[in-house]
Amino acid sequence: MKVMIAKTAGFCFGVKRAIDIAFNIAREKRKGVYTLGPIIHNPQVVEKLKEEGIVPIKNISTKKDVTALIIRTHGIPLGLSKKIASIGCEIIDATCPFVKKAQYYAKLLNDEGYQVVILGEKNHPEVQSLMSYADNQSVVVNAESSLPKLKNKVGIVVQTTQPLEALTKILSEIIKQAKEIKVYNTICNSTAFRLKETETMAARVDVMFVVGGKNSANTTQLASLCRSLSVPTYHIETSSEIKKSWLKGAKTIGITAGASTPMWIIREAEKRIRDTGG
Amino acid sequence: MKVMIAKTAGFCFGVKRAIDIAFNIAREKRKGVYTLGPIIHNPQVVEKLKEEGIVPIKNISTKKDVTALIIRTHGIPLGLSKKIASIGCEIIDATCPFVKKAQYYAKLLNDEGYQVVILGEKNHPEVQSLMSYADNQSVVVNAESSLPKLKNKVGIVVQTTQPLEALTKILSEIIKQAKEIKVYNTICNSTAFRLKETETMAARVDVMFVVGGKNSANTTQLASLCRSLSVPTYHIETSSEIKKSWLKGAKTIGITAGASTPMWIIREAEKRIRDTGG
Repeated sequence: MKVMIAKTAGFCFGVKRAIDIAFNIAREKRKGVYTLGPIIHNPQVVEKLKEEGIVPIKNISTKKDVTALIIRTHGIPLGLSKKIASIGCEIIDATCPFVKKAQYYAKLLNDEGYQVVILGEKNHPEVQSLMSYADNQSVVVNAESSLPKLKNKVGIVVQTTQPLEALTKILSEIIKQAKEIKVYNTICNSTAFRLKETETMAARVDVMFVVGGKNSANTTQLASLCRSLSVPTYHIETSSEIKKSWLKGAKTIGITAGASTPMWIIREAEKRIRDTGG
Repeated sequence: MKVMIAKTAGFCFGVKRAIDIAFNIAREKRKGVYTLGPIIHNPQVVEKLKEEGIVPIKNISTKKDVTALIIRTHGIPLGLSKKIASIGCEIIDATCPFVKKAQYYAKLLNDEGYQVVILGEKNHPEVQSLMSYADNQSVVVNAESSLPKLKNKVGIVVQTTQPLEALTKILSEIIKQAKEIKVYNTICNSTAFRLKETETMAARVDVMFVVGGKNSANTTQLASLCRSLSVPTYHIETSSEIKKSWLKGAKTIGITAGASTPMWIIREAEKRIRDTGG
């Protein structure tokens, strides 16, 4: 049985950077440092960080001893940043630099008088933060949305993990309405590369494993992509979920993983697959 | 036999305006007034204007007695405007206001540091003028072009008579390369409406007549559209070209015409079709 791991599987630049920031802070053994929400969408990494003394809290009022808050890769709404600063709490900003860029463009487009259209999933924290930078006057759409009536001047900014096809589709709709369009393609290349490699791999293997948090949007997107290509696909968080029956008769196995999946979890999955066999 | 004339057939706003300007000037009986090239792409109108004393010249040096030049709807390159002004010749500007707008945006995009992409036909005078406003550093593409390597920051301006589908297609290609795109959709609505009505009409009739100059790009585009819908299509300049055999067995006839075709030529075609019969 041949087992392949995608080169693009696992931590992207922004996630690696955020994890490094958090674990470096943990080493300082400071009191009252928390992450605002889980640092990344991966329960195993969040658990490890907890063991090092840095615990996620849901909102800034739940703990009285908070002295510093680590902001996760997805970023936070502008109003929340101001609120945290106003209570004298330190902000340790681990927002992905690519998300920062998207926030900046959302603000710029709004300042320049464009009606801001955000392509992404409305409930995703990154999109929630982008909305705040566009002064909460934006329209959020995804590739399936039918567009509302738009203004003549439309500015587009994109959730960093969206596929390019979604942007192409939305653009072809917006051009029917708006006369002036400014697009900042803020899609992160690492997402595009990961999707591309996953697509190629899925076409060549008998079974695909997608490793990562069930609450991770980009991991879920990888699993959907594989399923759309009609290859048997299993989205697992850890190796313990793997069943022998899944591997029956499989000669080639592909493994990919979301941007928030640490390499040790991917390696464990690989080992379990090899040990279990087909 | 039922003969229908498209509501959108014939002179658009810009052409009507240019013709009015030219014939008003003709009434003044001024000496040394010429049009720079044919005022519109319609030989019959050009002939009528000649009879009124206003003759087209190819370039400003061919006639010694030129005191004023009427600029046609398509506009002229920026350098040429300056040259005409520098020799003390008056410019009577009949450039279509929508083309003026596209010229302005081509300049603006170039000034703002965008690599200007012009969607249109390279040899068309309108596109030649747009190129000059983008400081002759632009890339001209049409819907069939494969794109060259583009810069990160791309600005798009469109020949006013292009179909929206061409813009959608080019956009979906450019988004694969550029990270920031600013689009001015300078497609003229009247072109879009005319294409739409022609498409609907062509689907309902046995024979289509497209009336207008063989050198008119938008008229030729109408004829291509009809042919692509597999309806027998005849592109004629005047009623004298109509053959009885074309009408054999036809119960419904559709007539459309380009933006530069005067209503009297359309009416003559209609009459000839009715007189000839099927």
